[in-house]
Amino acid sequence: MLSTARVPVGKVVGHASRCEEDLLAVEEPLEIRLGRMSLSVTMRTPGDDFDLAAGFLFAEGIISSAKQIRRIQHASDGNPNIVVVDLSPDAVVKPVVVQRGFVMTSACGLCGKVSLEALEANRCPLLPHSSLKIDPLVLHDLPDRLRREQAVFENTGGLHAAALFNADGELQSLREDVGRHNAVDKLIGQALLNSRIPLRDSVMLVSGRASFELVQKALMASIPMLAAVGAPSSLAVSTAMRCGMTLVGFLRNGRFNIYSGSSCIAGL
Amino acid sequence: MLSTARVPVGKVVGHASRCEEDLLAVEEPLEIRLGRMSLSVTMRTPGDDFDLAAGFLFAEGIISSAKQIRRIQHASDGNPNIVVVDLSPDAVVKPVVVQRGFVMTSACGLCGKVSLEALEANRCPLLPHSSLKIDPLVLHDLPDRLRREQAVFENTGGLHAAALFNADGELQSLREDVGRHNAVDKLIGQALLNSRIPLRDSVMLVSGRASFELVQKALMASIPMLAAVGAPSSLAVSTAMRCGMTLVGFLRNGRFNIYSGSSCIAGL
Repeated sequence: MLSTARVPVGKVVGHASRCEEDLLAVEEPLEIRLGRMSLSVTMRTPGDDFDLAAGFLFAEGIISSAKQIRRIQHASDGNPNIVVVDLSPDAVVKPVVVQRGFVMTSACGLCGKVSLEALEANRCPLLPHSSLKIDPLVLHDLPDRLRREQAVFENTGGLHAAALFNADGELQSLREDVGRHNAVDKLIGQALLNSRIPLRDSVMLVSGRASFELVQKALMASIPMLAAVGAPSSLAVSTAMRCGMTLVGFLRNGRFNIYSGSSCIAGL
Repeated sequence: MLSTARVPVGKVVGHASRCEEDLLAVEEPLEIRLGRMSLSVTMRTPGDDFDLAAGFLFAEGIISSAKQIRRIQHASDGNPNIVVVDLSPDAVVKPVVVQRGFVMTSACGLCGKVSLEALEANRCPLLPHSSLKIDPLVLHDLPDRLRREQAVFENTGGLHAAALFNADGELQSLREDVGRHNAVDKLIGQALLNSRIPLRDSVMLVSGRASFELVQKALMASIPMLAAVGAPSSLAVSTAMRCGMTLVGFLRNGRFNIYSGSSCIAGL
């Protein structure tokens, strides 16, 4: 499964055109099954699909630890676009969730909430205590580190990235996808499968904007700080405030804005 | 309902910080109901909610014309985050769709497809014939026109835009949202409610990337050409090729790439 595809393209400058080749980010559907039941289809960039499935189940509250996953594998017919997850009997798959057969898309996080009541019933918990302190000068440097590691984006311009860093600005892990929520699910799913959750001492950096759903996914993994290269939304800010998360936006060119809880930033 | 919110923010440059105010794009959940039944919740920027609901129902194939909508209104309790749509009896709401209670998110278009089979069963039709011809020099100019009209983005940096232009590059309509698919649903929903579909003589411009779902939404509205300021995905390109859509990407700085079907571009 390749994450890039080469296609012929007509390049136009002014009125003049010429034929060339171009490299695109691959987008293909992934079906996630719980046993024999189809749970969802997401449009994703192939790769790290087991991480994506695990991260999705965790973010949606279907599982709370990696121990509840007995097995993750591709479908028995070898279709690389179907991942089958077998859960242990103690995983609580609420009938309502299963019946719903929700669909995740590249911007999910709300999956399975069919009404405002269901959304509001999903109360925002508080983050556990974190001793993460990151120096502003280290923070300024993170987007460049992300970009240097983001191999596919450089070639295609088409992928979102999400990464975890420690307080010293060392990269812990990085995932890319055409969908920004998939990139975060892959990142958190990988941490889950490696027993690294709660991620109390990490900052998560995303290459785009910070939405409500990204704050919610970080919260599920106990990540104390979310930094975005782009703008946050109003609900991302109010949710971060309510759960005690440090939220930074517009992190670029030696500047950033603190929208919520500066406790993770040294010297402020 | 405001589309921007003013919040206090700590602005950091290097190590120095100062308090200021910042303007954010508002993100709030919208619940769409069919009669008394909750159909979906999307995170959206308030505004044009009736267009959004109509465009979503159309893109998902639940309705095929505005005549099937008897009434769109806010919930009787006045909650601005709930829109209730009453359909005429001839609208075919497939039980499977209704039972599913799918969730739309800011990147939907796949809503209601819980398995690969369901996705593949949804065959890509061919676009009807279009006589749209747009000059490359007119095309180069569209992103600037979009940006000039995109009032909220300028203030917040947080909104996606989608717009329709005619062959002369005149702006026909524009919609903004924190979710790029919502912006497109609002745009197409407005056209639907104004009996302007099929949109055979328009080009749709989006401020970000072109995904499979955006091509699919354009196809539903018979839009012959999609232009994106950012990169397309592999599946966006193959879908556009299959249905005969002209797909342009990286439209900026006097350049663009033609990924599929140049028939709508004059002189090529």
